[in-house]
Amino acid sequence: MPAITFDLIKTCSVSSARLGSLTTPHGSFETPIFMPVGTQATVKAMTPEELVQAGSRIILANTYHLYMRPGHELVARLGGLHKFMHWDGPILTDSGGFQVFSLGELRKITEDGVKFQSHLDGSYHFISPETSIAIQEALGSDIMMCFDECPPYPADYAYVARSMEMTTRWALRCKNAKRRDDQALFGIVQGGMMPELRERSAAALQEIGFDGYALGGVSVGEEKALMHEVMQFSAPFFPADKPRYVMGIGAPEDLIEGINAGFDMFDCVMPTRNARNGMVFTSFGRLNIKGARYAEDTLPIDPECDCYVCRNYSRAYLRHLFRSGEILASRLNTWHNLHYYLSLMSAARKAIAEDRFPRFRQEFYKKRSTTDGCT
Amino acid sequence: MPAITFDLIKTCSVSSARLGSLTTPHGSFETPIFMPVGTQATVKAMTPEELVQAGSRIILANTYHLYMRPGHELVARLGGLHKFMHWDGPILTDSGGFQVFSLGELRKITEDGVKFQSHLDGSYHFISPETSIAIQEALGSDIMMCFDECPPYPADYAYVARSMEMTTRWALRCKNAKRRDDQALFGIVQGGMMPELRERSAAALQEIGFDGYALGGVSVGEEKALMHEVMQFSAPFFPADKPRYVMGIGAPEDLIEGINAGFDMFDCVMPTRNARNGMVFTSFGRLNIKGARYAEDTLPIDPECDCYVCRNYSRAYLRHLFRSGEILASRLNTWHNLHYYLSLMSAARKAIAEDRFPRFRQEFYKKRSTTDGCT
Repeated sequence: MPAITFDLIKTCSVSSARLGSLTTPHGSFETPIFMPVGTQATVKAMTPEELVQAGSRIILANTYHLYMRPGHELVARLGGLHKFMHWDGPILTDSGGFQVFSLGELRKITEDGVKFQSHLDGSYHFISPETSIAIQEALGSDIMMCFDECPPYPADYAYVARSMEMTTRWALRCKNAKRRDDQALFGIVQGGMMPELRERSAAALQEIGFDGYALGGVSVGEEKALMHEVMQFSAPFFPADKPRYVMGIGAPEDLIEGINAGFDMFDCVMPTRNARNGMVFTSFGRLNIKGARYAEDTLPIDPECDCYVCRNYSRAYLRHLFRSGEILASRLNTWHNLHYYLSLMSAARKAIAEDRFPRFRQEFYKKRSTTDGCT
Repeated sequence: MPAITFDLIKTCSVSSARLGSLTTPHGSFETPIFMPVGTQATVKAMTPEELVQAGSRIILANTYHLYMRPGHELVARLGGLHKFMHWDGPILTDSGGFQVFSLGELRKITEDGVKFQSHLDGSYHFISPETSIAIQEALGSDIMMCFDECPPYPADYAYVARSMEMTTRWALRCKNAKRRDDQALFGIVQGGMMPELRERSAAALQEIGFDGYALGGVSVGEEKALMHEVMQFSAPFFPADKPRYVMGIGAPEDLIEGINAGFDMFDCVMPTRNARNGMVFTSFGRLNIKGARYAEDTLPIDPECDCYVCRNYSRAYLRHLFRSGEILASRLNTWHNLHYYLSLMSAARKAIAEDRFPRFRQEFYKKRSTTDGCT
């Protein structure tokens, strides 16, 4: 029996937007969904209970960071990541590939795997497809990701093709290395901006067979328009009966475009990281809470929002907290931003269920372009 | 009608410990009580709801900081401090005197008041007894404090006597400056380590007449034993029918000694500040969560504690969060420490009510000295 089951509930009659349901060993949720990022076994500034209140149903944790600190073996000895961080819901772990790739000069990629130096203490490490799976199995996530190479952008066709082929060979090694049957494994489609390579990658991964498929390398230095384009032309290469996950994006409009293209799962640090920098999302666009214009503003962040923060705090107070360097600023901004992202997903699901996603998408853009409030 | 009413419910038959009840415009609570410090209109890392869950019934806010940022007039225009910070319960504001005094070279004290430079931008300011009351009235706290001079320690008799006499004159000016009748005003007894000066200060303030009386200058550089001594010899100079507040202390044992001496109210940044530095309080002593000994410790901070943190998180996880610089570390440590302080006060109240405070005090010390766990 597979670790997860995916049911495609409905597909939009006009766009490629899909409504689905994913069941994991730690619970079920509907898709499209956004996964808050819990890099170091905590979604920064939030408790698990608050994540649920904000609408989170699945979170992402970073294999590279947890391998480095506190160490996957320690997490395993303490009963796994769910217990360690007091989160009972589904967890998806990335493979560590993207973080290792991001180390730049500190890493060396070969067919075997990647040698790299720790960003914490400079010590030498090696992660291969096999060790990535071993780490993710020790963490005990519900969904594991194959260890992939994420090529830089821009890169020439030959490089991207070679890299994609190695990622495919690594995917097979990941599947062969997998021991636990209570964890799902997703393959990662690479191939840069080249439709032909994306198609070959997707086909090769389906031949191996995975529980779900992800679109990788979309968040690396590409323009927004290109990002949307690669989602559009890649989605048809993905099987309809498995969850489709776009890794590492994005802004609200990127999620809307990803859903429109037919993707089901998303993750990004944007709502949490931007919150800590004072940038909050609203139904009419972004708002920088630092702005002097909010000094005496008694409105909540978003008058249309019903989250804990918007029900209880004014922009003036949030600005004061941010300027004073208070922890509560990070907390409240993060809470609101996650609520915004997760409500947007919830509204998108409802729109798909009612077969009005294209209108929903239009209204999403219209509201942002006609109302003042962006800074 | 006075803004607050204080009822002395019971006095210990052996010690001077008192059980009381204080009613303010924003609610009632029993004493002895500890007031978490919300310097910049937030108890660092906590929401108001969490403060209540941890047992807080009244909090303290700092006049100096709020005068500086965001400004008391802005707070007043936004509806006062309670509304601004989303805290419906009682608030006590200090007078700003202690913070201005702490500026050292940046301030100059005269009979009129204190000239000083902002710690934020170096701008020049002046606070007098009259302006301190005006600021506190703009903030709208339930209990205001008289603007006092807190003499340095050590200081000679003549200096402390002169300073205390000026503080008395300032107290009268504060009372005369007071306009709102929905805020109480406490006088501050000064006089350093000299019983005679403390007695004269307390008598002079009672002649003016205040809603409560505070012991000031106890947290300034004095040894713990001296601090306990000054509380012991000063308490009898305070009227029995008004709340008695020791300002700015302290460690758990200082609170126990303050209660034993007959004081009712306490505030200190120790539980919150130490939490952010990884130091947590337990029934068996202090514990530094950074310690390598906790790397795989599955126990909660304090196995005898039933707070949210101890019910859900291991020392190993809290250590990981702290080492990773995560905001959640500050949050959870703060939550636990405040719960510890507030539970200690609650247990002390119960012990006084049952006329067994001296035994409670003995057991408090016994537990800490016989059980391992301190670091």
